[in-house]
Amino acid sequence: MGLFSSKNLDSLETLLIDQIEDLYDAEQRIAQALPKMAELAHCAPLKAAFEQHVRETQNHIGRLEQVFQLLGREPSRHTCYAVKGLIEEGQEVLSATGDECVIDAALIAAAQRTEHYEIAAYEGLITMADAMGEAKVSELLTENLEQERKALTKMKTIGKRLANDSAKASV
Amino acid sequence: MGLFSSKNLDSLETLLIDQIEDLYDAEQRIAQALPKMAELAHCAPLKAAFEQHVRETQNHIGRLEQVFQLLGREPSRHTCYAVKGLIEEGQEVLSATGDECVIDAALIAAAQRTEHYEIAAYEGLITMADAMGEAKVSELLTENLEQERKALTKMKTIGKRLANDSAKASV
Repeated sequence: MGLFSSKNLDSLETLLIDQIEDLYDAEQRIAQALPKMAELAHCAPLKAAFEQHVRETQNHIGRLEQVFQLLGREPSRHTCYAVKGLIEEGQEVLSATGDECVIDAALIAAAQRTEHYEIAAYEGLITMADAMGEAKVSELLTENLEQERKALTKMKTIGKRLANDSAKASV
Repeated sequence: MGLFSSKNLDSLETLLIDQIEDLYDAEQRIAQALPKMAELAHCAPLKAAFEQHVRETQNHIGRLEQVFQLLGREPSRHTCYAVKGLIEEGQEVLSATGDECVIDAALIAAAQRTEHYEIAAYEGLITMADAMGEAKVSELLTENLEQERKALTKMKTIGKRLANDSAKASV
């Protein structure tokens, strides 16, 4: 279950497949959660960033399906408990009240953690694919990684602005 | 519960305290898990890296206690479900069998995800502390962040070597 569904880690390929299945599940959970976060966001740039990332996440899922194909496997997911937990925590904001900027900052805090999880996962997968000489797999994963990094940078920029705005508002 | 224990996000300070309590819990869970990961690791550099990070994590906990003090609060933790889940997943490796290099690579995969979670958390906290003009708080959090980044870089370097070794072994 979870990150390692195989109890017999006999080869790097077994570990690679395990972790692609984990990430394939994570990306689908994220694709489902993002529209709710976009709906909840108050500030326009944050709403737009979440909406853009919904479309990107659909593409990530498509690339992971190509990766499965290249490795001669049927796409399969196993529960990614970490992202499941992160999304549940992020959705606690749904029932929070308070200052709009602070609620948006809380949404960003949850989103940044999810982005970092995905970055960690893609970095690990690329290292393994490179070692196995799977150049095309590595290339597809790198495309996803680059978009996750850009999404994180955008979240950080919006987060900084929101934190400054809400600190000023409370003076 | 979780990342946002306060249902009324009325100020940036409320969000900051919430997230410090989340991270204070996470660091303590990590401090407990790392010795088990060090014990399980087969390759000497990985074992040493985990052992070094146990000591660093103790210092991180100490710095977070100073942060609580600076903010006039008693240290308090609330369950960080994401890190709890990540650690549970990492510990699934405890019962895995197989190739030593692949088991070590799996341990690194779990550790990298945890490091990234902490980096996301520290980055968000520093942004908020800076916006609030809490320079000393920001400085302490930055010291922890820098050590997490160094630990991640080390994990990635060892991970690359292990992936190459185990790919060569299976040729």
